[in-house]
Amino acid sequence: MPSIGIDLGGTNIKGGLVNENGGVVLKIKRETRSYQAVDKVLDRTFKVIDELLKSAKRVSGIGIGVAGQIDSEGVVTDAPNLNWHNVPLKKPLEERYKIPIFLENDVNCAALAESRFGAGRGAKGLVCVFIGTGIGGGIVIDGKLLKGATNSAAEIGHMKIHPFGPRCGCGGYGCWEALASGQNIVKYALEKLKDEPNSLIYKIVNNDLDKVNVNIVYKSAQMGDKLSQDVLELATKYWGIGIANLVNILNPEMVILGGGVINSTPSLLELIRNKLKTLVLPVALKKLKLAIGKLGQDAGLIGASLLKD
Amino acid sequence: MPSIGIDLGGTNIKGGLVNENGGVVLKIKRETRSYQAVDKVLDRTFKVIDELLKSAKRVSGIGIGVAGQIDSEGVVTDAPNLNWHNVPLKKPLEERYKIPIFLENDVNCAALAESRFGAGRGAKGLVCVFIGTGIGGGIVIDGKLLKGATNSAAEIGHMKIHPFGPRCGCGGYGCWEALASGQNIVKYALEKLKDEPNSLIYKIVNNDLDKVNVNIVYKSAQMGDKLSQDVLELATKYWGIGIANLVNILNPEMVILGGGVINSTPSLLELIRNKLKTLVLPVALKKLKLAIGKLGQDAGLIGASLLKD
Repeated sequence: MPSIGIDLGGTNIKGGLVNENGGVVLKIKRETRSYQAVDKVLDRTFKVIDELLKSAKRVSGIGIGVAGQIDSEGVVTDAPNLNWHNVPLKKPLEERYKIPIFLENDVNCAALAESRFGAGRGAKGLVCVFIGTGIGGGIVIDGKLLKGATNSAAEIGHMKIHPFGPRCGCGGYGCWEALASGQNIVKYALEKLKDEPNSLIYKIVNNDLDKVNVNIVYKSAQMGDKLSQDVLELATKYWGIGIANLVNILNPEMVILGGGVINSTPSLLELIRNKLKTLVLPVALKKLKLAIGKLGQDAGLIGASLLKD
Repeated sequence: MPSIGIDLGGTNIKGGLVNENGGVVLKIKRETRSYQAVDKVLDRTFKVIDELLKSAKRVSGIGIGVAGQIDSEGVVTDAPNLNWHNVPLKKPLEERYKIPIFLENDVNCAALAESRFGAGRGAKGLVCVFIGTGIGGGIVIDGKLLKGATNSAAEIGHMKIHPFGPRCGCGGYGCWEALASGQNIVKYALEKLKDEPNSLIYKIVNNDLDKVNVNIVYKSAQMGDKLSQDVLELATKYWGIGIANLVNILNPEMVILGGGVINSTPSLLELIRNKLKTLVLPVALKKLKLAIGKLGQDAGLIGASLLKD
């Protein structure tokens, strides 16, 4: 029996009718319009689900991946991109559809999907690391998502890797995300650019510094720009440290990378792989596979559809 | 049916006949004499087991906790305190006793024991953190020890918490252990003492700096010694960061502290608890319990006896 997976993000509500092999039979997308009231966003989510249900005789459940934190009662406690705080989501869905409803953080959903049908197929223990505007992740052990005591496991972006590091959005200091998210790497590059008027980056972006991103830094480093090489070297070190910590703690068979930064610049995979050689304990490195996720944009909704299992 | 648990450490071989409730019915201890050849140490281990077997009609298995790394074939790949490298341990035991033999790292055994019969009883997810000469740990999820792909999960001491930190015994830099093990905290205190001839520590140890340990630093800090307060503040910060990272990644119900440093100075628990308030994400802090292990010196052998399950 197919099931429905919804990826409820800050920009789009993506829904899919997913069969038992992880195949997306039907896909529907609507804008989230998160600036509107919760009810409106909820209505649009209902519409996506209603349309999907029209095409299926029966579904075994509805799973929703939300870009935020969800408690064990099915309340979205905090979803900054949706501008939602303490929004009960499970209950209205249960009342409307009378079929099993499952909620989970969107990155955890993506990790579950990659483990079941993506790059991590067959791996017993796996960590997904998504490097984009922030850094998020999911941990799968023996095929099961690690949820933790308050459903907030795998907050890997808030692992502290510098005891005297910069302030993070979470209020803490020295978090991995505060040092190595795409946004913060760019911020660091822009800082350094102030003192380096001859950096190639200026040329590449035609002096429009708003265009600087990790991909531009990578390209410019490849072209021999010293500043970009320094920024990339430090970024790779930070990415390596965070991933190595996860590996030394969890000893997974596989680490899957994803997120905007990695997807725009897949060559980073080899830089990171190289860095891990000096950071991961040899015994844990021995069987470690490192790969980029295979399911791309669909990972979230496929994973949401798997929450029923 | 009882089972046998052996704690094979650098100083002593401790063995116990353990009943199904985790009770140690009979306990035997011999010196390891790790400076002798592997065969001799093995013989002494046999003798401990033989004696325990005399007192039991039948045992369901023999578990050995070893202060080192063990591969999935039952070979002790590296045990610095025993001076063992690539020593097959499972095979000779199986050949001699013809009953199921189970090997595991000693700290993992202790974590398992604390989870089943100690401070962690009832906790679904738990992390044990042992701070002594080094920093080691064990992770228990849903009552099961997290082993990892190469049986080397929970190498928490080699989590890097400082990107420009000092060199660690493992060859890496900035490892938690290199910053915050008992030995390294003392080393840091001794460094600072060079410039502070008036520190109270000199008085407390009667100018015999070999006597400085974390407990002395703690006492001296309580008495108002500025240097000791500074050292303790930094140590607590490092302990807090490492533990907070584990909590933010694993979201356990419980963290159990143990090891020489904690056991000699249990008051550190409250300092660490306080520090965690600013380091752990609020959602994960909500249900987190922090406690000191209850099984003390017996944790290793009790845990070894549980490996059969």
